[in-house]
Formats: sequence, C-alpha cells, structure tokens
Amino acid sequence: MTLIAGYAGLGIMGRPMAANLKAAGIPLAVFARKAASAQSLVDSGATYHATAASLAANCDVLFINVSDTPDVEAVLFGPGGVVEGARPGLVVVDMGTTSPSATRQFAERLAQQKIDMLDAPVSGGEIGAIQGTLTIMVGGKPAVFEKVKPLFEAMGKTITYVGDHGAGQVAKACNQIVVGGTIVAVAEALLFAEQQGVDGAKVREALLGGFAQSRILDVHGQRMLDDNFKPGFKAKLHQKDMRIVLEEALASNLALPGAAQVLQYLNALVGSGEGELDSAAMFHILKKMSH
Amino acid sequence: MTLIAGYAGLGIMGRPMAANLKAAGIPLAVFARKAASAQSLVDSGATYHATAASLAANCDVLFINVSDTPDVEAVLFGPGGVVEGARPGLVVVDMGTTSPSATRQFAERLAQQKIDMLDAPVSGGEIGAIQGTLTIMVGGKPAVFEKVKPLFEAMGKTITYVGDHGAGQVAKACNQIVVGGTIVAVAEALLFAEQQGVDGAKVREALLGGFAQSRILDVHGQRMLDDNFKPGFKAKLHQKDMRIVLEEALASNLALPGAAQVLQYLNALVGSGEGELDSAAMFHILKKMSH
Repeated sequence: MTLIAGYAGLGIMGRPMAANLKAAGIPLAVFARKAASAQSLVDSGATYHATAASLAANCDVLFINVSDTPDVEAVLFGPGGVVEGARPGLVVVDMGTTSPSATRQFAERLAQQKIDMLDAPVSGGEIGAIQGTLTIMVGGKPAVFEKVKPLFEAMGKTITYVGDHGAGQVAKACNQIVVGGTIVAVAEALLFAEQQGVDGAKVREALLGGFAQSRILDVHGQRMLDDNFKPGFKAKLHQKDMRIVLEEALASNLALPGAAQVLQYLNALVGSGEGELDSAAMFHILKKMSH
Repeated sequence: MTLIAGYAGLGIMGRPMAANLKAAGIPLAVFARKAASAQSLVDSGATYHATAASLAANCDVLFINVSDTPDVEAVLFGPGGVVEGARPGLVVVDMGTTSPSATRQFAERLAQQKIDMLDAPVSGGEIGAIQGTLTIMVGGKPAVFEKVKPLFEAMGKTITYVGDHGAGQVAKACNQIVVGGTIVAVAEALLFAEQQGVDGAKVREALLGGFAQSRILDVHGQRMLDDNFKPGFKAKLHQKDMRIVLEEALASNLALPGAAQVLQYLNALVGSGEGELDSAAMFHILKKMSH
C-alpha cells in the first residue's frame, strides 16, 4: 500500500524535507499558511490544501514542521486544524522541536480520536534537510514507527527509535544541551589560547587528534577562528530549544547548571542583536565579557 | 648521531613512555626518587642514576614526568637537580602538565645555562602511554622540536608543534577545558533523559550520529550509563589541571565561567572521597544535586 504523505509547514526545514519525500516517489500533499511557500512543491506535482483539516483528510502520514509548541497545537487543534479533517488511522508526525510534556499531551488527545502520533525532531540543519542526511530521533509506538520509517529514510540518514511518546523530543533536548555546552567549552578554550598568545588554529588541530575531539570543535572551532557565524543553526532557535529544556527541568526539579548558563549566553546573544547568527556566536558573549 | 634519552619520573605515565623509547632502540638512562620504580627499565638495559644531576650529565634529551609545577622546579633547580649536572646543549622536555607561565620562567632560567627546553604535555592517559598512541602538544624553539621529534614519535601518535615556550602547556590547558566542559554537558543530557524516563543508551546512540558527536559522549557517555568510573584519568589530576587553568585566567583577568564550574565539580568530587575515580564521575555530583 502506497502511503500518501502530507506536509504542513514549508519553511527552511520543511520545504526541502517535503521535496525529498516527493523525489523518493512518495505522493505528496501540502499545506502552508502562505501559499507561496508551497509553489515549488506544487510545480513538481504536490497537491495544495488551504487548511490543515483538508490536508489531514487527504493523506495517511501528516508531517508538521512549525516553529514552536503553540504552533503545533494550533495546527492540530485550532480552527481548520488537523483534528477537524482527520480520518481514523491518520499518523501525525511532529518533526519540529517541541516540549516533551506537551508532546505527550498532544499524543493522548489525538489517540482519543484514533489518530496516531510520532515525535521526530531532527538535527543537521538546513544543509542536512536539503541533502537528506538529517539525524531523526523518534518517539511513539514501535508499530507506528515501523510504518513511517520508509518515509523518514527519504529525509534522513541516522534514524533512531528512542522510545514512547516524547522520547524523540527528549533526545533532541539532550542534543541541544550537549551542543550548547560543548560550544561554550570550545569557546573558553580558544579564548584562553588567544589570551596566552598562542595560535588557536594549532590548538584546535592538536585537540582534534585526542580526547577533546568533537564535531563542535571541528566545525564551530573553525567558525570561531574565522569569526564566521553565518548560520547554520540560528541562536534564536537554540534559545527556544534551551527554554524548553529548562522549562522541563524546572517542572521536574532537576538542576542543570550548565544548560542554564547556555540559555543565559543565548539570551545575551539575542539581546545583543545577534540572534540571527549561528549559536556558536556565543563565543562573542564570552569574549566581550573580558574585553 | 644517536641521542641518549634520559627519563626522570617513572610513574603511571613516565614508565611506559620511557619503555617505548627503549623499545624503539633509543639508549636510555633513568632517574626516579624510588629506585624500585626504575627496576623493570634497568632490567631491560637502561642505566640508573641516583640523582637528576647525574642523569643530566649522561644524556642528551632529558624527559621529566612529575606531577605538578613545584615538582618540575625541584627536579630542575633543587639540590641534586638537573642544572647541577647538565652540559651545555642538553634539552629538557617537560611531559607533565605544568603552569604555562612557570614553564616560560623555567625555559628562561635554563637558557641562561645554555640548556634548551620544550614543554610537551600529553593526552591519552595510561593506555595511550602504554600503547605509544599519546597526543603530544609541544612548545619551544622549532629547531629543538625537530631534534626531539623522532623521540616523541616513539611515545605518541599525534604530535603537534603549537608554538613558543609554554604553548604546549596552553594547548593542554585548552584540552582540559574542553574535556571538562563536555563531560558536564553529556552528564546533564543523560540526567535529563533519565529524569524524563527515556533510555540514555538510545539517546547516546542517536546523538553520536549527529552534531553532538564527541569522543567524550562516546567513551564517557558509556561510562555514565554503566556507572563505571574506573580511571582513565583521575579526577584529582583533572582538578590540578583546572586549578592551573584558573590561576592563569585569574592572572590575566580572563573570565572562564564554564571552566570555573568544572573546577567546583571536581572539588566536590574529590571532597566526596571520589578523587581516584575518572573525572567523568562529575556525573555523580550533578546527579546527587537533585536527588
């Protein structure tokens, strides 16, 4: 049985991901608040729908790529939303970065209407979306994951089933904690080298050969040396993700001092007018503290 | 011309490193405060000297592997120390982790007696020392580095000339900043997953395929999942290294909030009686904060 894919949210990430589904020969229907965002996909044969409800009535697996938790809620349960049009057995897949606890609530509300849900946030950025090399972290029921897996494989390279509803969002939150903390560590190391009059490029090179190796040191370490913070992954989006992490940590009384510090640097970066830069530009905040 | 290597300090790191020099066919003379530490090397043909001065009089390149800055000073300038026996042209190589500013002072004092110095701290731990796969970060004069390079190649795999005197120590300090900060980030991520009821092993697996990838996530992430903190690299030694980093940062008025936090966790770990564990056991401190 050929599944019909639906895609709601055709921004920087959603559009190339939907295009990769289409390119893999999967029938595609789309919805976007701005019809213009859908034009290139419609030109290549996708069906356009003016509401999420209409999209839901005409597809088997409905992917959502909108920016934050309230936007997901609006697409699902708002006026003209998914639940108004969905047939029983529809699978909704949230590919954005959303609160884990809200995700669990959404899955429960959808289940009452016999709609399945997966949370499947990604890492790898716009380039990974275009090249179909995203890392996809999936939460939900195993059988539903197996059903959608061939579609994920059209969009990503490393696809991991993490656990029950929300587990994909938890993995993504963990990803953002690690990425943020590692950026800060690399930034402090390169600032220390600079202050000591030592060539940061040589330090990066030496460290990449040993235990301090990371993709962050490799990619963002080079960005810091070049002062090139063209995104990549925008600071204002990393700020949103760390806000979600720390809201969850607060709700469960878990102390995450490093993650809290990362959010403060991201607040400072956005406050300094640099929220459109890559989040590795936290380097600027750490640098200007002592200069 | 065959260089005669001298080795002072035959502890967990120094002994296997000296053994690798001997195994590479390099004539070896040794000195250790406890003669017993030298026994295995003497059995394999190394010459034993009862003082650093005597060792210095009988070798061309004198490696030092002692635990902290004052110990290096004692071996060099104390009673029976290197300068009492050294011939002009001797090269002293400090392979331990020492203060960069003290290193610059030592190099200057030695130069007055026509003794060359390199700072060449390593990363890779006891296993790297035994297997000869250490990362070696070198500071000093380029011509002196070229002279000693073949000996480094008997002990390490990634050998990087970083810059003038102290630059090797600065690179090592950067290494410890990055390793410490990344351990904290990985620990917080795995604690977040645990608190959310999500399998940390799955999270580690998903993250290793993406931008959060690091050797720390790979090796120490697994340690955290297994609660196995057999060293590896002891917390009390990481504490010493971070103390050096933060002394240098204080002396130059450079704010390193992340590195400062790492030192506090290491203080807490040693204070909790776990200073002999691997420094990845900072996971315990972060965990018990909220439990």
